[in-house]
Amino acid sequence: MEKRTKFVLDEEEIPGQWYNIQADLPRPLLPPLHPVTKQPLTPDDLAPLFPMELIKQEVSTERWIDIPEEVRDIYKLWRPTTLFRAHRLEKALYTPAKIFYKYEGSSPPGSHKPNTAVASAYYNKKEGINRIATETGAGQWGSALSFAGACFGVKIKVYMVAISYKQKPYRRIMMETWGAECVSSPSKDTKVGRDMLAKDPDCPGSLGLAISEAVEDAMSRDDTHYSLGSVLNHVLLHQTVNGLEAKKLMEKADAYPDIIVGCVGGGSNFAGLFLPFVKDKIDGTKPDLRIINVEPTAAPTMTRGPYAYDYGDTAKLAPIIKMYTLGHDFIPAPIHAGGLRYHGMAPIICHLADLGLVEATAVHQIPTFEAGVTFARTEGIISAPETNHCIRVAIDEALKCKESGEAKTILIAHSGHGHVDMAAYDAYLSGKLVDYEYPKEKIEEALSKLPKV
Amino acid sequence: MEKRTKFVLDEEEIPGQWYNIQADLPRPLLPPLHPVTKQPLTPDDLAPLFPMELIKQEVSTERWIDIPEEVRDIYKLWRPTTLFRAHRLEKALYTPAKIFYKYEGSSPPGSHKPNTAVASAYYNKKEGINRIATETGAGQWGSALSFAGACFGVKIKVYMVAISYKQKPYRRIMMETWGAECVSSPSKDTKVGRDMLAKDPDCPGSLGLAISEAVEDAMSRDDTHYSLGSVLNHVLLHQTVNGLEAKKLMEKADAYPDIIVGCVGGGSNFAGLFLPFVKDKIDGTKPDLRIINVEPTAAPTMTRGPYAYDYGDTAKLAPIIKMYTLGHDFIPAPIHAGGLRYHGMAPIICHLADLGLVEATAVHQIPTFEAGVTFARTEGIISAPETNHCIRVAIDEALKCKESGEAKTILIAHSGHGHVDMAAYDAYLSGKLVDYEYPKEKIEEALSKLPKV
Repeated sequence: MEKRTKFVLDEEEIPGQWYNIQADLPRPLLPPLHPVTKQPLTPDDLAPLFPMELIKQEVSTERWIDIPEEVRDIYKLWRPTTLFRAHRLEKALYTPAKIFYKYEGSSPPGSHKPNTAVASAYYNKKEGINRIATETGAGQWGSALSFAGACFGVKIKVYMVAISYKQKPYRRIMMETWGAECVSSPSKDTKVGRDMLAKDPDCPGSLGLAISEAVEDAMSRDDTHYSLGSVLNHVLLHQTVNGLEAKKLMEKADAYPDIIVGCVGGGSNFAGLFLPFVKDKIDGTKPDLRIINVEPTAAPTMTRGPYAYDYGDTAKLAPIIKMYTLGHDFIPAPIHAGGLRYHGMAPIICHLADLGLVEATAVHQIPTFEAGVTFARTEGIISAPETNHCIRVAIDEALKCKESGEAKTILIAHSGHGHVDMAAYDAYLSGKLVDYEYPKEKIEEALSKLPKV
Repeated sequence: MEKRTKFVLDEEEIPGQWYNIQADLPRPLLPPLHPVTKQPLTPDDLAPLFPMELIKQEVSTERWIDIPEEVRDIYKLWRPTTLFRAHRLEKALYTPAKIFYKYEGSSPPGSHKPNTAVASAYYNKKEGINRIATETGAGQWGSALSFAGACFGVKIKVYMVAISYKQKPYRRIMMETWGAECVSSPSKDTKVGRDMLAKDPDCPGSLGLAISEAVEDAMSRDDTHYSLGSVLNHVLLHQTVNGLEAKKLMEKADAYPDIIVGCVGGGSNFAGLFLPFVKDKIDGTKPDLRIINVEPTAAPTMTRGPYAYDYGDTAKLAPIIKMYTLGHDFIPAPIHAGGLRYHGMAPIICHLADLGLVEATAVHQIPTFEAGVTFARTEGIISAPETNHCIRVAIDEALKCKESGEAKTILIAHSGHGHVDMAAYDAYLSGKLVDYEYPKEKIEEALSKLPKV
């Protein structure tokens, strides 16, 4: 066993059900609130945006939810994904630690995102919806939903944060190749966008603003729904297909993690991996398991933000949710990990952190690329800038093992490749990258703007 | 079986040996000639460029050649690769044909190239060589050798065709991420390069010229060898790991191809897939198997070039080989499939064509992208522009089946993804792509410049 590099499952072994952590929470989640009335959201509030099946999943406390056959059929294009043992990285670090990574970069868009995009497109199509509006930061989510739209014949309109739209044309072209329409946000296609352009024609955009545009688009058209690629409970639910596979594969490897690390922006990738494991911590079978959420120092939501009710978007159109937050009008520093530049965090992850079941740490940008280059030169894969954040922490933990002599087992949630992010590597290799520390004043300012609920 | 999407092998099932077609050829290959003396090449002639193990493989007639354990260990980072049944593409075409594709895009550099790059770096390291010079067109080969160099601690110097160096910075950055040095060719680092820059400071470069630079680099330094990513017998040999896997996987799928299609530049990707199958044609067990080499109309080596002895490079430093050729000073039209812009073709493929065992066809650029977009919207994968050439022919053959009602089995040699080629898709989607027909005069001109041997 020791020398095995890859652990794989047959396509028949793709899980038949998603795992719903809401069935096992020691305390239930706090409800999301309506952005205007500030009362708990009802299914009717959400109906203009989401298909009823997803609204049900959002609040379900059933432990297992069936994955529709049509969704599993699409999953088969790239799932189950592989669990790797990072022998070559371990050797380069001279560590006794055993490092594993579950790799989601083999999906057509190159990340974990289609796990939920495919489900979202499917449930919308099933309820007669033929058009979905969404936002995208760095482009991973937008391209995943574009791919999913192509699978089910659903038209996709993507509002892409302006600065990424300019810097990452390849992601836009991917979306167009799959048949979607992609515009720079703020755009002229919504009132929110037009108002912002009138104020600032060169506005670089933000994820919060792009969400506002997509929500407005969906609210204003009967034929259109909205889809969100992270944060929400049903999104994390869909991502558990990855964690369930990982658990089976770790068994095949005759191992169980001491530490699981993953990067968090909205949190869906990492939660998808760790939720089936956190269950073992809740029921007491694995009390010492450490689950480390890794975020950038430039967007230190969990490590420095308050745990409070806040809006999900800039224009206050999205629900108010209880989460760690940097404030709904947060404008992030231009770090290359575009997927980690969100002001909030999935309520499930925040709740688990509040319960002491998961922890968080923040890392600087330059050390993440240093880790990414080490990973590329040992394991081959050039990782997404987001993923480099947790690779950094995995390497640090493995180096601690070298000091202590402990042979800990570390599992990395590897969310995707960096093929479309090579400009970031160029900046690192040529010494042009800088680090960002989130200013203390901004946190105080954000606190003062939280909604009174 | 009918509904299965993927056919996979365990990593223990990576072939233990490469298959050498030279053991089974009805007539032996004609020898390569020294570029100056025009006498058959001796091992001593090649020793300044290649490790002795590869020189032996180049002329070996042993049917099976062991894959070193160290090479198989690296292969395990992504091999065995998956055989897909293209159910969704078949459905979109309403064809009774069964379409399979063996996908090589899951390797770290994203193509089949590391199958031979890893072997080349290994044998060089084993013989004490710590530096290798090479050329690259679109960047696939250069990045594969850079990755392989990182695996074994060998320094890699890549001469990248100037026009690609400008147009495809992502490929250069990939090479640098794996620790290689990459310069624009013609460069100031060689006499060939300096002479060309003196004549034409804006020279766009060509693969033939970049080969000349890399060969000069290797010839002029004792610590350096040269490595070629296609054309040569030992390169095709290493690529057979893919065809051997494909054969096992087609058995798992309970199928055997009626038609195998692949794109050809130097020919190594496609030969790697088809050589283990062509054996069945030679020994008479599968007389009706069709093997179709697909090339661009802009570089129609096999469909319009003469079968003659010609130099492998522009500066006449490389051996003279018997092949279909468009002339060693061929300057290709700027099609996006950079990997198909070579003037010659692997002698093994040319020999098999001459024996009537394989055939060739040429396709225009625009229809290849049309096919690539259809593939992306059904199978998910965004393919390399090179691969789109054979996808075009596979679709055409499947549509013929729709006409005739025949349920033929078609196997595509899918050489890699197009994540770094999105600009080409942008040109296609925005209607800016043009087709190129190779001019008749140029073929006559090339004929007049063939070496007299």
